[in-house]
Amino acid sequence: MKIALVGIGKIALDQHVPALAASPDWDLTATVSRSGQVPGVLAFHDIDTMLAAHPEICAISLCLPPVPRFAAAVAVLRAGRHLMLEKPPGATLSEVHVLRDMAAAQGLTIFATWHSRMAQGVAAARDWLAGRTIREGRITWREDIRKWHPGQDWILDAGGMGVFDPGINALSILTAILPEPVHLQGADLDVPANRQAPIAARLQLSQGITADLDFRQQGPQTWDIRIVTDDGTLVLRNGGNILQIDDRPVTGGDSIMQEYPALYDRMARLVRQGASDVDLAPMVLVADAFTSGRRHAVDPFEF
Amino acid sequence: MKIALVGIGKIALDQHVPALAASPDWDLTATVSRSGQVPGVLAFHDIDTMLAAHPEICAISLCLPPVPRFAAAVAVLRAGRHLMLEKPPGATLSEVHVLRDMAAAQGLTIFATWHSRMAQGVAAARDWLAGRTIREGRITWREDIRKWHPGQDWILDAGGMGVFDPGINALSILTAILPEPVHLQGADLDVPANRQAPIAARLQLSQGITADLDFRQQGPQTWDIRIVTDDGTLVLRNGGNILQIDDRPVTGGDSIMQEYPALYDRMARLVRQGASDVDLAPMVLVADAFTSGRRHAVDPFEF
Repeated sequence: MKIALVGIGKIALDQHVPALAASPDWDLTATVSRSGQVPGVLAFHDIDTMLAAHPEICAISLCLPPVPRFAAAVAVLRAGRHLMLEKPPGATLSEVHVLRDMAAAQGLTIFATWHSRMAQGVAAARDWLAGRTIREGRITWREDIRKWHPGQDWILDAGGMGVFDPGINALSILTAILPEPVHLQGADLDVPANRQAPIAARLQLSQGITADLDFRQQGPQTWDIRIVTDDGTLVLRNGGNILQIDDRPVTGGDSIMQEYPALYDRMARLVRQGASDVDLAPMVLVADAFTSGRRHAVDPFEF
Repeated sequence: MKIALVGIGKIALDQHVPALAASPDWDLTATVSRSGQVPGVLAFHDIDTMLAAHPEICAISLCLPPVPRFAAAVAVLRAGRHLMLEKPPGATLSEVHVLRDMAAAQGLTIFATWHSRMAQGVAAARDWLAGRTIREGRITWREDIRKWHPGQDWILDAGGMGVFDPGINALSILTAILPEPVHLQGADLDVPANRQAPIAARLQLSQGITADLDFRQQGPQTWDIRIVTDDGTLVLRNGGNILQIDDRPVTGGDSIMQEYPALYDRMARLVRQGASDVDLAPMVLVADAFTSGRRHAVDPFEF
């Protein structure tokens, strides 16, 4: 099946392009980007031109930041093509609801991806937790914004989600592995005096689960989830890629390079089945934290 | 059918109690409140005691503020009773999702009410807009917080929603009357330097609709929605209670006293049908405004 990639930035070149090159299902036929391109692939600057020129491209994958993504997504669905969205699937919940309803009305596939759910330890963690009772849990998601988002002011601006840009990956894993739905009970948001979005957050969730999200981590980076049950303790490390039960390694490895191939494999199956997958649970928890959380002004931040 | 009312404050005494007294469907059998009571009705201080003592009470209506409401709602559903919620139905979206799923799993009715949707002009406005094309719209919702919420610090604290506490009434009407779903495109939130929640907000919605919400109005209060279509202009005044088309009065009146009787009538029908009604569209727009809106510090506010 022919596919086009829109938004040729770091994540597209690092993950999407290699995943598509190795895929038995997909042929990367075109790209759309202001400046980026992929050697050997037709390059467009404008999505509407591409859609009109290539009716044989049946699916479009969007790697744009959340704010400009909606207009492109509407163009894709209006042109009758299947749609795959990077995380988070939009800048707001209400716009993703619109996309979901548009796709359903036309019988098109829409896939709101959460790449961390494809990490190597996640499926085994979900299976192990099924039937066990959660006693408490702890998310520790601490990374260096200067390393991963150098100079990207938009991420700390209104709509940029701040520390929830990485933190939503943890929430996407949590909501995939817990046997029962989780809800937000409280949140504290640390917002730099010169920015709009939080640079750190502490969440209190139901089932005794807390989250410590921080974008100011220096030195070793931490992406861990620890869940204590009535029958043992589970730890997911390295963004869901390493699973340990009661301190014994179970599955996984350091590499995150299988996450995007798994997403494109799932997209191919959804298209063939005429199905969609839009699970907004991680985004609802973030919206709840913004709505009900207590803001604390912290030191101004400069990249 | 026997019903209990939990949270005997101003809204319960002004609206819920008279509506129940006049209802052909409901018998107000008990109240639960720290200090409030209703003459001639059994009064409890604790919801669990009331639920255990009166298995014949089949439905519970909660008039508590959003934050303490969730624990009471869980107690009601665990006790196998039908549940009616004042607006907004919770402090967060994720907790309302939990309630909705709990009620569905037990075959119980849950009704997340939006009293402004029962205002006298709303149904006629929806019918008139059906089939017409929206060109633009304007919500103007300006009221005096000191008049309606004297000394209620919680409303400007984290989780209190600020000006969205009244503004969500406008959004509940808008989402009920528009032929197509609306989504948030941008928001500016004015937050007093000594408070957590916005005291004023300006929203940009799709379909060319804007909203001007302000809690600092003095003098005349304004609760108006104006929708310009390709075939005439609709104005709802007085919180949805007066409908004008092209400046001619169509229906309605000043009184809001029919809103709560209509809610209890609908609750009775839902219980008899074994159905539920949980439409979170107004709350999603508020969560979107908190998540993606730009905050502006404004003068400190004291009641």
